[in-house]
Amino acid sequence: MSVTVAVAGASGYAGGELLRLLSGHPDVEIGAVTAGGNAGTALGAHHPHLVPLAGRILVETTAETLAGHDVVFLALPHGQSAVIAEQLGNDVTVIDCGADFRLLEADAWVEFYGGVHAGAWPYGLPELPGQRDKLRGAHRVAVPGCYPTVSTLALLPAVQAGLVDASQLVVVAVSGTSGAGKAPKAHLLGAEVMGSASAYGVGGVHRHTPEIEQNLAPYSDQPVSVSFTPVLVPMARGILATCSAPMADSADYETLRKAYEVAYADEPFVHLLPEGQWPQTQATLGANTVQLQVALDQRTGRAVIVAAMDNLTKGTAGAAVQCMNLAKGLTETTALPLVGVAP
Amino acid sequence: MSVTVAVAGASGYAGGELLRLLSGHPDVEIGAVTAGGNAGTALGAHHPHLVPLAGRILVETTAETLAGHDVVFLALPHGQSAVIAEQLGNDVTVIDCGADFRLLEADAWVEFYGGVHAGAWPYGLPELPGQRDKLRGAHRVAVPGCYPTVSTLALLPAVQAGLVDASQLVVVAVSGTSGAGKAPKAHLLGAEVMGSASAYGVGGVHRHTPEIEQNLAPYSDQPVSVSFTPVLVPMARGILATCSAPMADSADYETLRKAYEVAYADEPFVHLLPEGQWPQTQATLGANTVQLQVALDQRTGRAVIVAAMDNLTKGTAGAAVQCMNLAKGLTETTALPLVGVAP
Amino acid sequence: MSVTVAVAGASGYAGGELLRLLSGHPDVEIGAVTAGGNAGTALGAHHPHLVPLAGRILVETTAETLAGHDVVFLALPHGQSAVIAEQLGNDVTVIDCGADFRLLEADAWVEFYGGVHAGAWPYGLPELPGQRDKLRGAHRVAVPGCYPTVSTLALLPAVQAGLVDASQLVVVAVSGTSGAGKAPKAHLLGAEVMGSASAYGVGGVHRHTPEIEQNLAPYSDQPVSVSFTPVLVPMARGILATCSAPMADSADYETLRKAYEVAYADEPFVHLLPEGQWPQTQATLGANTVQLQVALDQRTGRAVIVAAMDNLTKGTAGAAVQCMNLAKGLTETTALPLVGVAP
Amino acid sequence: MSVTVAVAGASGYAGGELLRLLSGHPDVEIGAVTAGGNAGTALGAHHPHLVPLAGRILVETTAETLAGHDVVFLALPHGQSAVIAEQLGNDVTVIDCGADFRLLEADAWVEFYGGVHAGAWPYGLPELPGQRDKLRGAHRVAVPGCYPTVSTLALLPAVQAGLVDASQLVVVAVSGTSGAGKAPKAHLLGAEVMGSASAYGVGGVHRHTPEIEQNLAPYSDQPVSVSFTPVLVPMARGILATCSAPMADSADYETLRKAYEVAYADEPFVHLLPEGQWPQTQATLGANTVQLQVALDQRTGRAVIVAAMDNLTKGTAGAAVQCMNLAKGLTETTALPLVGVAP
Repeated sequence: MSVTVAVAGASGYAGGELLRLLSGHPDVEIGAVTAGGNAGTALGAHHPHLVPLAGRILVETTAETLAGHDVVFLALPHGQSAVIAEQLGNDVTVIDCGADFRLLEADAWVEFYGGVHAGAWPYGLPELPGQRDKLRGAHRVAVPGCYPTVSTLALLPAVQAGLVDASQLVVVAVSGTSGAGKAPKAHLLGAEVMGSASAYGVGGVHRHTPEIEQNLAPYSDQPVSVSFTPVLVPMARGILATCSAPMADSADYETLRKAYEVAYADEPFVHLLPEGQWPQTQATLGANTVQLQVALDQRTGRAVIVAAMDNLTKGTAGAAVQCMNLAKGLTETTALPLVGVAP
Repeated sequence: MSVTVAVAGASGYAGGELLRLLSGHPDVEIGAVTAGGNAGTALGAHHPHLVPLAGRILVETTAETLAGHDVVFLALPHGQSAVIAEQLGNDVTVIDCGADFRLLEADAWVEFYGGVHAGAWPYGLPELPGQRDKLRGAHRVAVPGCYPTVSTLALLPAVQAGLVDASQLVVVAVSGTSGAGKAPKAHLLGAEVMGSASAYGVGGVHRHTPEIEQNLAPYSDQPVSVSFTPVLVPMARGILATCSAPMADSADYETLRKAYEVAYADEPFVHLLPEGQWPQTQATLGANTVQLQVALDQRTGRAVIVAAMDNLTKGTAGAAVQCMNLAKGLTETTALPLVGVAP
Repeated sequence: MSVTVAVAGASGYAGGELLRLLSGHPDVEIGAVTAGGNAGTALGAHHPHLVPLAGRILVETTAETLAGHDVVFLALPHGQSAVIAEQLGNDVTVIDCGADFRLLEADAWVEFYGGVHAGAWPYGLPELPGQRDKLRGAHRVAVPGCYPTVSTLALLPAVQAGLVDASQLVVVAVSGTSGAGKAPKAHLLGAEVMGSASAYGVGGVHRHTPEIEQNLAPYSDQPVSVSFTPVLVPMARGILATCSAPMADSADYETLRKAYEVAYADEPFVHLLPEGQWPQTQATLGANTVQLQVALDQRTGRAVIVAAMDNLTKGTAGAAVQCMNLAKGLTETTALPLVGVAP
Repeated sequence: MSVTVAVAGASGYAGGELLRLLSGHPDVEIGAVTAGGNAGTALGAHHPHLVPLAGRILVETTAETLAGHDVVFLALPHGQSAVIAEQLGNDVTVIDCGADFRLLEADAWVEFYGGVHAGAWPYGLPELPGQRDKLRGAHRVAVPGCYPTVSTLALLPAVQAGLVDASQLVVVAVSGTSGAGKAPKAHLLGAEVMGSASAYGVGGVHRHTPEIEQNLAPYSDQPVSVSFTPVLVPMARGILATCSAPMADSADYETLRKAYEVAYADEPFVHLLPEGQWPQTQATLGANTVQLQVALDQRTGRAVIVAAMDNLTKGTAGAAVQCMNLAKGLTETTALPLVGVAP
């Protein structure tokens, strides 16, 4: 018996990626595909890669067009999800790819996003300890931000095992430009982006900073503090996060590596690479995977963890489908590629 | 009941793409993965995107390691397939991604490749009229070159309907650099390729030229002549072929478009786009599709057909799997994505 | 004695390239830099590469802000130059990088651009026979379009010598995306452009088509007809034009090559490459050069000429400075790089 | 009176960039251009962008071909400079772009490079306090590594002013692939590099690590320790270094910014951007500049400094020419672009 789904914000990048994955899901029937300004146009005009759905016409994003589906995915600009969600009953599972319901603390919301805090939904990172069970049967899910997903998965085993000083975490994450969305802006033009790398949101002001800290804090004995810097680089997809922290005095490389081996031994989508092999984003392109490697810098005493992920797949739409699978009692891994598209 | 397959040349780009597709094939069991110089190393060291196969160890490419499989895919440098193939009996279906068995005429082989012509195998382009039936149950298949596939599919309906002057075909095809393979060469380095476009094999000397003509000739009333120029551009995958020819006096745009609609109405992988929408390679990335659009240049009287395709998927490995499906009596479209990965 | 110059449209790509070149011109003093919506902001916010000018404040583009300079460069959207230009007296040399004054025929203007034809100014392609002299001392110059410059230079020697059938010219030109300007549009976003090639303006409808024909017609014994297709590829700058035409029966390769050697023997910026070496756009990046190579396809009887150029330098701003040098009696080559930036 | 120069290793990227800059130097006459395996071929076959030098024939790299020039630039693989240099007398100024003579300590050389330590030459970073004077009239200069240049310039003012904890420096630097040179390697192929980001030399094992520490140590009251991670991203040129360290308790943002303003107020090539503007590598492409910005992350108490630079220009060949200018008593800034090529 199929799960019927609607995708709101279907003409954007997250919406397109949701439909790419959902179109291959054997237990899903795709219902309404909705948009704002693009309502009335064919999906294929925005996503010519979605061949089987190309003729679908985008309808207006409203509670009415979305109601009546088993699952509604929201891929809307920040701040728009709450209004829609409150009009959808608990018989509809709502999975929000936006930020509206990610942060637990109203203060952090106000500081980093501004406006009124809409609240917090079950957080869609099944790889957090115990989180998988909270997502089973959930009616509302807040899909994590892309940087928080990869940074959290990169740092959690070391933090949780007390192997690093969690008050001095440093994350520098390079990202492709699809993470910035499809709304046209001059600094995201191809001619600006190609051949250039640039940092932004420097100095702890990027909105994903409190989300990373929120994820790690419950597993740390000490206060968690993350210095986070995102860097735009010339690629469409992919995040490579370089994470580091001072190692605890007692810890050594073997302990560090072992912590990651144990943490992710049974995780279907998080893979510690063989020693000597370093992650590259291309290997995760279009896949729901995170690839990790760890090192101990003997000279400086810092643990360095590098993680690669596709920001649109495991970083957004893949995570959303994974959460849907859990929420609706389907097999967690269904329709989620383990194999990337490379080169 | 599974079909067992071996992939020779598994550490290269065509080999990797074959394994990407085959790893998702429900009727296939992947047996030997073989290599030349890379034998003895793990597949994951060369293709970290092939997560479920990463631990497989590459074995030496020999008739012995390949024998005993139902299907053997050869993804070897030109000239190496014949030697292997003749040691494999007719109980093994051999699907060659190389050029060795593509050309019908020994003269053309000698002129464009040099050395001894190995012969010709059933040509793996099911979209050619009548060709699909010849591939069903075949024991040997020669997978077409990437440029010939896209150029042939772009030009065939117009040529076959006699709508264009087939003696004055012009094809300029831009291509990503994966088509040139993984053997390291200075002019294919990232620093050379990024930010640059360059023509090569200009003046009719590219080896794919006679193959395009061979494909079209049987369907033309007049001699077929193709001026073919390939252009390398800064992307990993994808071919965009701009094809043109003088229209026959009697023909008009509606007739031209109709010819393409009819020709590909029932083809699962070849798609004429809605009027006004032009192909882009990104829409075919990782998919086994070809996207087409046609125009009539009223001022010059030339028909212009533009086609997009992924050189590694429908251009090589996807076509090979499509042929395997036909050869082994499986559903032709199994394990072949219709949906690309974009952006 | 310095020539004072103003640049209108200074925050765009053509404006930035003009300022890059002019900032190195020993005989030029840069006066007003003007903009539309960006007026009031610092130039460095738009062009951080223009270090010595970064603190300059953009002023509104008006006849008043532009008047009083010896030379005014207009880098404005099509249709805006005429209004400004008519308010500037003949004591001001106006060099227009837009299309407004390129086309001789009102009919062609109306068909391809629409609206009222503003007229025609001396055409800024000094490499056309006799044209250099017309530009010396000119008060008004229409800088050619980028595609017309490279296509004309690629085809002219063969057309002029009667070596090809000028009624069957085919040009397929790949281009970086800076040619489309800096106004944000979704299809020009980095995520759309990277990893993708796409044709546009197919079927003879691109506005540069009549300009190419207009350039070649005076040098041809027969009517000139060009089938022109532009292709966007993932790079910021550069055009590679693949041009071809049926060779005249009497012509051979030596004659063809000789025609190009002779035509450009004394041209400082147009270079026929040694035999066997094919143009790549990277070699012209940031330079005012065009690199050419010719071939005769013996099989099809077509001449194939490939040309590389930087669309922003020789294709726009470099040509404009070259024209200024001629118009103001300066050395033609001053401040125009022969050496590109590669890799 | 011209300075005669020879360039050894002229067919590589550093050699090409040296010749690009030197070809525009009014006080320089380019003599021998030498190579290893490429000796006997034309320079234009390797560097078609060097139009005025394209016909020069590469000669073998030997002490004989290099002798007799006022200045010899060595752009050779690590380990080859010492042998050549010792055969050139002190009448020849030798400027080494390789690593052979950069490290002061033999132990560090042995640990990071292996083999015998050749010694240390005056270090070619004129922006180090007092260093400019040591380079005037020098007969031997060791040009810094690209990562050390940008990292040192980014961190020095904060370290020197005691504003940060120099024992906890973290540098993550993304780089284009030209830094890895032109020798063909599979992982540097365009198809591998485009669309992918990857870390390498993680865990403090990259050879540039001790060089960064060596540069900063003399200006620090405490031991200097740098956790350095380089990341390859899909661009040909450019480095963006994100550097951070815990701020000293007493320091605030204004003090931090002031330290950078003061340190680089008179430096021609190092530019602190206006507040609110962050560096992008494109702005430095082909220029001898470094662009910097600083921030204080109030939440974590870390200073974050981001710096952009072209690895081939200020990172290698521009620095080498700058050093030549100083060594030979020429104006330091001659032939060194302040203006980059963008977009």
